[in-house]
Amino acid sequence: MKAARVYLDWNASAPLRPEARRAMLDAMDVTGNPSSVHTEGRAARRIVEHARAQIAEATGAQGADIVFTSGATEAAALACAGRGLSCAPVEHQAILAWCDKRLGVDADGAIAITDPGGAAVQGANSETGILQTLPPGLAVTDATQAFGKIPFAFDWMNCDMAILSAHKFGGPKGIGALLLRRGTEIAARIRGGGQELGRRAGTENVAAIAGFGAAADCASRDLAAGRWDAVAELRNILEKALASGPRQTIFVGNDVARLPNTTCIVTPDLKGETQVMRMDLAGFAVSAGSACSSGKVRGSSGLAAMGFDDAQARSAVRVSIGPATTKDDILRFADTWRRSLETQRTPAVHERSLT
Amino acid sequence: MKAARVYLDWNASAPLRPEARRAMLDAMDVTGNPSSVHTEGRAARRIVEHARAQIAEATGAQGADIVFTSGATEAAALACAGRGLSCAPVEHQAILAWCDKRLGVDADGAIAITDPGGAAVQGANSETGILQTLPPGLAVTDATQAFGKIPFAFDWMNCDMAILSAHKFGGPKGIGALLLRRGTEIAARIRGGGQELGRRAGTENVAAIAGFGAAADCASRDLAAGRWDAVAELRNILEKALASGPRQTIFVGNDVARLPNTTCIVTPDLKGETQVMRMDLAGFAVSAGSACSSGKVRGSSGLAAMGFDDAQARSAVRVSIGPATTKDDILRFADTWRRSLETQRTPAVHERSLT
Repeated sequence: MKAARVYLDWNASAPLRPEARRAMLDAMDVTGNPSSVHTEGRAARRIVEHARAQIAEATGAQGADIVFTSGATEAAALACAGRGLSCAPVEHQAILAWCDKRLGVDADGAIAITDPGGAAVQGANSETGILQTLPPGLAVTDATQAFGKIPFAFDWMNCDMAILSAHKFGGPKGIGALLLRRGTEIAARIRGGGQELGRRAGTENVAAIAGFGAAADCASRDLAAGRWDAVAELRNILEKALASGPRQTIFVGNDVARLPNTTCIVTPDLKGETQVMRMDLAGFAVSAGSACSSGKVRGSSGLAAMGFDDAQARSAVRVSIGPATTKDDILRFADTWRRSLETQRTPAVHERSLT
Repeated sequence: MKAARVYLDWNASAPLRPEARRAMLDAMDVTGNPSSVHTEGRAARRIVEHARAQIAEATGAQGADIVFTSGATEAAALACAGRGLSCAPVEHQAILAWCDKRLGVDADGAIAITDPGGAAVQGANSETGILQTLPPGLAVTDATQAFGKIPFAFDWMNCDMAILSAHKFGGPKGIGALLLRRGTEIAARIRGGGQELGRRAGTENVAAIAGFGAAADCASRDLAAGRWDAVAELRNILEKALASGPRQTIFVGNDVARLPNTTCIVTPDLKGETQVMRMDLAGFAVSAGSACSSGKVRGSSGLAAMGFDDAQARSAVRVSIGPATTKDDILRFADTWRRSLETQRTPAVHERSLT
């Protein structure tokens, strides 16, 4: 009998929550365009505004200051483009694309933030899970990986803008938001309609927005109910099991504040890409680097910034779990991983020469 | 017994096709991020590429030259921003936002295209359904209303770029595409990931893309099967029935080539907005102007460009139908409309003073 697949790549995309799926199905039955004034249009508008209220409640933002976008990448462009912000090399590509990488990172992954009002700083790193201490007055925070996994209260953060992505916490792919502090001005990048108070034109993605709202609601309830404490326990069990393996293993950031669900495994001399493929064949989905560009697996620039050498950075494998992950999943993964390492005794000189 | 609602606003948003809904549901069960290299990621990638192939087949574009966007409005920005293109005032706001409105329009709605290589020209107008003759060498065509309702073959058009929106032909809201002629260069506006061959970053909206692909496939089959010929017959029955009503009625563009499903009704001295609300209360969804900006109903700038005076432009009501519309729907609408006009015998001086 073939064993079921084990999905351990929640930071790349989390499974769709049943509540989000249901909300999407209901929305798919509403034909109207939210900009239409007739009954069908108003029904679609209600779905969008209900979801906006759910997200406001879950994030501590105000509804009028939530701009729906097609995801975190679009929200990052809306927040950062043309602003001359600074950031650190550990940020996601979607932030790096618009900011000057002049902020330093120490060996523990902490960003040296010099001018909060001119900086974009992530809440949590997608590869390592390392958390940043966000100073008041920050221009932009990328909360893509943080929201849902650790407490998040936009109204307490004293930050101008925060970026969210629904599929990281059980909403659908292709929808996100930019949260704005009241009074923060942004220039619309997608124009030609009055949607989102003129800050983002285009017919709203009603079904995805409905799923986003439901997922945000559930995510904040799950967090309050302590479901991520149990996730952290599983992650710690995993690291303990892997530490007893046949090779030197570094768990990046395991002595600083991290997301409860993420472990970044560095096994010097073995290529992360190879481990990911071996584990995939064995039934486990994990990743090397973040899933940010089609089919390409690169050495992590984030790890390089923390002082890891190229061989170490290229060996990194990320395991990211969630509330649906079981102890059995974790132990089976650890067992398979250890056995996989045992069959790769030869230092990977050959492998490295291939890159 | 309350009569069922009759939806006659297909140009604002068409009902989701069952095939699209099914494809979306299947996609919602696939957890992977299309950029992930593991089994789950590759399954998501396959959905995206299958849809891309369906759209290529349905439109005559090549898969590698289809860029998925969050809708036509984003596609218009990607196609037009920073290019100094010209257009006519009958274009959608999403085109007007980026182009110089210097092209003229005659009384029949035909655009005087002086420099095709520097122009954006719609295939069909959303309010009137009037079709344009697209010259070879055109820079951009907005095919949002045309695709699915009239024959469309991108490979025969000799046009650099075409804009599509899935929800206009039975796909979900919030997804669209820019079709590119091989070799046409565009600058990505959403950056920070290698998706869409670097032309549009961000995790793909897998479920919406799946629905888009299925809808495009069905739309091209429906058209080939002659289902829109039947739609045109119904539209003509509607206009005939309305023409016998108690007031002077103009059907804009009814002696030039139009979409088969659209009628734009001008009833001088009556405000379109009022008619839309009266018909909505009576159970019919129609629109005044296009549904392009939240809750606002303005006089149509497109009609003004064709030489209609302000009172005429403000009186315009668009009825747009589709293959699911029945003759009974049409006759009931016509009957209700005529009776509604009878109760508005007083010239609307009072109404006009309110605007």
